[in-house]
Amino acid sequence: MEWVLEQTQRAIKRYRMFDRGDKILVAVSGGKDSLSLWDVLLRLGYNVEGLHINLGIDEKDYSAKSLEFVEKFAAEREGARFQVVDIKAIYGKSLPELARETRRGRKICALCGLIKRHEMNRIAYEGGYAAIATGHNLDDEVATLFGNVLRWQTGYLARQAPVLPSTHPRLARKVKPFCRLYERETAAYALVRGIAYIYEDCPFAKGAKTLFYKDLFNQLEARSPGAKLGFYLSFLQAKEEGLFAEVKERVELRECERCGQPTTAPGLCAFCRLWTE
Amino acid sequence: MEWVLEQTQRAIKRYRMFDRGDKILVAVSGGKDSLSLWDVLLRLGYNVEGLHINLGIDEKDYSAKSLEFVEKFAAEREGARFQVVDIKAIYGKSLPELARETRRGRKICALCGLIKRHEMNRIAYEGGYAAIATGHNLDDEVATLFGNVLRWQTGYLARQAPVLPSTHPRLARKVKPFCRLYERETAAYALVRGIAYIYEDCPFAKGAKTLFYKDLFNQLEARSPGAKLGFYLSFLQAKEEGLFAEVKERVELRECERCGQPTTAPGLCAFCRLWTE
Repeated sequence: MEWVLEQTQRAIKRYRMFDRGDKILVAVSGGKDSLSLWDVLLRLGYNVEGLHINLGIDEKDYSAKSLEFVEKFAAEREGARFQVVDIKAIYGKSLPELARETRRGRKICALCGLIKRHEMNRIAYEGGYAAIATGHNLDDEVATLFGNVLRWQTGYLARQAPVLPSTHPRLARKVKPFCRLYERETAAYALVRGIAYIYEDCPFAKGAKTLFYKDLFNQLEARSPGAKLGFYLSFLQAKEEGLFAEVKERVELRECERCGQPTTAPGLCAFCRLWTE
Repeated sequence: MEWVLEQTQRAIKRYRMFDRGDKILVAVSGGKDSLSLWDVLLRLGYNVEGLHINLGIDEKDYSAKSLEFVEKFAAEREGARFQVVDIKAIYGKSLPELARETRRGRKICALCGLIKRHEMNRIAYEGGYAAIATGHNLDDEVATLFGNVLRWQTGYLARQAPVLPSTHPRLARKVKPFCRLYERETAAYALVRGIAYIYEDCPFAKGAKTLFYKDLFNQLEARSPGAKLGFYLSFLQAKEEGLFAEVKERVELRECERCGQPTTAPGLCAFCRLWTE
């Protein structure tokens, strides 16, 4: 348990994620990684508040159950404050409703990502948070990295890092303090700390590529222990040495007419367009 | 069958591997890829000769059988000339003998690679060949690429390409005309053309990482058809766009006092040192 605390503290320092005085927003889904991260940051004494985004996923009561785990976690801990953004209450439609109605043929997972990014940026800006911390663990990062490497998406590769700096006042700094911890380590931490969390994957994640990539890397790790960490750390090392340095898409950003967040499109940003289709 | 011919011809042109008049050395192990490549290059009318390196692997009569397949292939085809480099006859030790005696703790596969590279370069130089063609197929390239990506070995990544230009008169140009053909395609080609080849993997390859990586990518390909080709071609594309362009180790090369091939070490090159330990 102490080891997870130490490792997280080290990552925060090593990658200069934030300082003691900073007001940090931790994105909490109700899963093991985000609740463990919240727990660790509280124990380390950081100034952290939770943000839960309720997407209104009815299937298997997924969103309702997720919220319950967040509430339970906070109720059991002194000083564990959090806010909930209820997408349907604010914007009129739940994620599944939106996905059914959208004419743009977007996949629901892409919609979900778009909504979460927008709302995290909005809340961080409105509340003056220094950074948003997410619970991405090493296995998540490795799966993402592999997906990007499979198509050599150099733009994404250039941006994948433990810290994504803010490039605009309305875009929050993003940090991943668990990026060097194996999924089995965060799961063990949650177990030993007695953190109750939603065990199921999101019902829409079934068959997701990232789960498949994780399975491939679990096979690799079983054969070559340390392979995941080596893959990720050597990637960061190569970037530090200048790989991808030239890859910077300089696209002009405007501000969305409705929400003010930066967008490449004229008029409304992709998020705000969702609700006007 | 015509498709394999066309694809090979296209790759030769697309990557400017060699021209009709060039004298090409094709490295033939006796396996499906190299014999198929030899067959295709002969059918396409290129000026090609075979080179077989006999490593003296006794286990399961591997080297003897391999040579037989090469001989059989050549005996059945007009104009299929080849030469054999017999390592034990020339240097006094077979590969397994050398591996047993070497004090440097090298793995036999690394030794094998060292020997083959040196001898291919030697024969190409002595015979005035314009390039050495090897039978590496897409699956081989993907496994190598993945291995290099796993540790982000930017030096190796910078050099992996369908064509490795000659950087010294004693270092042959290397080309891989089958680099965009799936292994199942070269296997099908050999089958339909009635090419007899050694079916077994090298006895020392058992448990080799590349075989494991190939298995991982077969799983990926089964789930996402085209994934292997996409991985390889997008890598080449990213390189064309300048990724890895900065990665150039400028190491000073000397010439080996015995064989004349370039080496970073003073005195003898790694190959020549093998026989003096």
